[in-house]
Amino acid sequence: MKNKKVYIIKASGKIEEYKPEKIYHSLIRTGVDESIARDIVSDVSKFVKNGMTTRHIYQHTIRLLRERKMSYAQKYTLREAIMRLGPEGYPFEHYFAKILEDYGYTVKTNRVIRGKCVSHEIDIVAVKDGKRYLIECKYHNNFGTKTDVKVALYVYARFLDLEEYFDRAWIATNTKLSLDAIDYAKCVNMKVTAWHYPYNESLEKLIERKKLYPVTILFDLNDEMKLRLLKSGIVFLREFVNTDHKLLSLILGISPREVRQIVGRARYLVEGY
Amino acid sequence: MKNKKVYIIKASGKIEEYKPEKIYHSLIRTGVDESIARDIVSDVSKFVKNGMTTRHIYQHTIRLLRERKMSYAQKYTLREAIMRLGPEGYPFEHYFAKILEDYGYTVKTNRVIRGKCVSHEIDIVAVKDGKRYLIECKYHNNFGTKTDVKVALYVYARFLDLEEYFDRAWIATNTKLSLDAIDYAKCVNMKVTAWHYPYNESLEKLIERKKLYPVTILFDLNDEMKLRLLKSGIVFLREFVNTDHKLLSLILGISPREVRQIVGRARYLVEGY
Repeated sequence: MKNKKVYIIKASGKIEEYKPEKIYHSLIRTGVDESIARDIVSDVSKFVKNGMTTRHIYQHTIRLLRERKMSYAQKYTLREAIMRLGPEGYPFEHYFAKILEDYGYTVKTNRVIRGKCVSHEIDIVAVKDGKRYLIECKYHNNFGTKTDVKVALYVYARFLDLEEYFDRAWIATNTKLSLDAIDYAKCVNMKVTAWHYPYNESLEKLIERKKLYPVTILFDLNDEMKLRLLKSGIVFLREFVNTDHKLLSLILGISPREVRQIVGRARYLVEGY
Repeated sequence: MKNKKVYIIKASGKIEEYKPEKIYHSLIRTGVDESIARDIVSDVSKFVKNGMTTRHIYQHTIRLLRERKMSYAQKYTLREAIMRLGPEGYPFEHYFAKILEDYGYTVKTNRVIRGKCVSHEIDIVAVKDGKRYLIECKYHNNFGTKTDVKVALYVYARFLDLEEYFDRAWIATNTKLSLDAIDYAKCVNMKVTAWHYPYNESLEKLIERKKLYPVTILFDLNDEMKLRLLKSGIVFLREFVNTDHKLLSLILGISPREVRQIVGRARYLVEGY
């Protein structure tokens, strides 16, 4: 590791000191073995130079991970895979609704419900154990954006207007939440699913716990192929590996032999290492 | 007037049929004499062609108005003058706070207040007759944008979080409000000041009733001169005409003779026709 301070550029445009610990922890969080994580961080630190973007560093990290273990790299790219779902491909609220179904919720997307004052379009209406949730999904295709307190405020006001139909408001987002958004949500008892928050119920934990990876996580497919899978209703990697190979060959426009290889690698990610 | 349908492009990009009545009513609302309004609309209708932008038509209307009576044209451009205040020049909330002061409110801008859940930055805190108002200002420098129901929702949630400090929430905007934003505001007893709404208390009515035109309405000054006036604290046209000519000459960088001419025309607009 270097001793000289190095400054890098974040997705938001802000400049911060390069801290190897950050990459180390993100690798550990992904499930990478400690010794491999140390190796990679050491390699990355040799590579990092003043003025480099975090994106550039991230891509280099992925490359190093891939050289060691493909499945690690794929898990590490989960966040990017979720971003690649939208905005034109597949609405984030549909993906999140599918995750909730897997957790035993009954869900309906894009419902218009008349409140005390006005009508509201609700991204997801979810029910579990007799509790009714009003879910607002916030998708950003930009790593630097945070979901801020204004979102939490308007979702809560919307919930109040629809109080007779719901027991709890819920924000689901693929980005981080601002600190006051978190404080506000806690204070008004709003449920939150965000990137890295809350610790044990964050978006990535919900996905990883049941291996609900989206097909966009596959390195082997190009964007057009991924889009065709999503449009065909094959959203989870799990659905992908369980789909008939002939059908996949038809959807993707590649040979059954190639399909078999890709499904093999995908199966590895879904079923464990 | 033409009998053939003509389609024009709005600021929002939407296409709609050209309707001469719309221009007629906007002129009458501005206070233009009926016969002059008819003349102008007839001239505009000859000029309008398929695919023209509303902006282009607006500029042509202004030109025709100026040919007839300068003061009419200036009043007609009030909306654009307000847009020219911001975003870099002079914050809309400061202009609106000055208007409120003229109506007997005590005002403070950009206050941070700790609510039950989180801290909020309030654009304007206004007090009148013992009632305390939380005012959120929404400025858009684009004719096509509407302030939507999400704004009304989050302002109301903010008000609820600060309920002990305020009696009523209030949205002030230089754009129109969406219909459900209006419905929601009515329903939760939120005060609203917007473009053309509410009829007798709209932003333009508040300005016109007391002739609180901003200096950006003056044709005779370029953008840099207007900015220098605003930075010097000369915001209302009324303040402009009451400022010492030598000082104005210094601020604007033009001769006292030119100042006298410009102030003369400005006085005409402030003091009546």
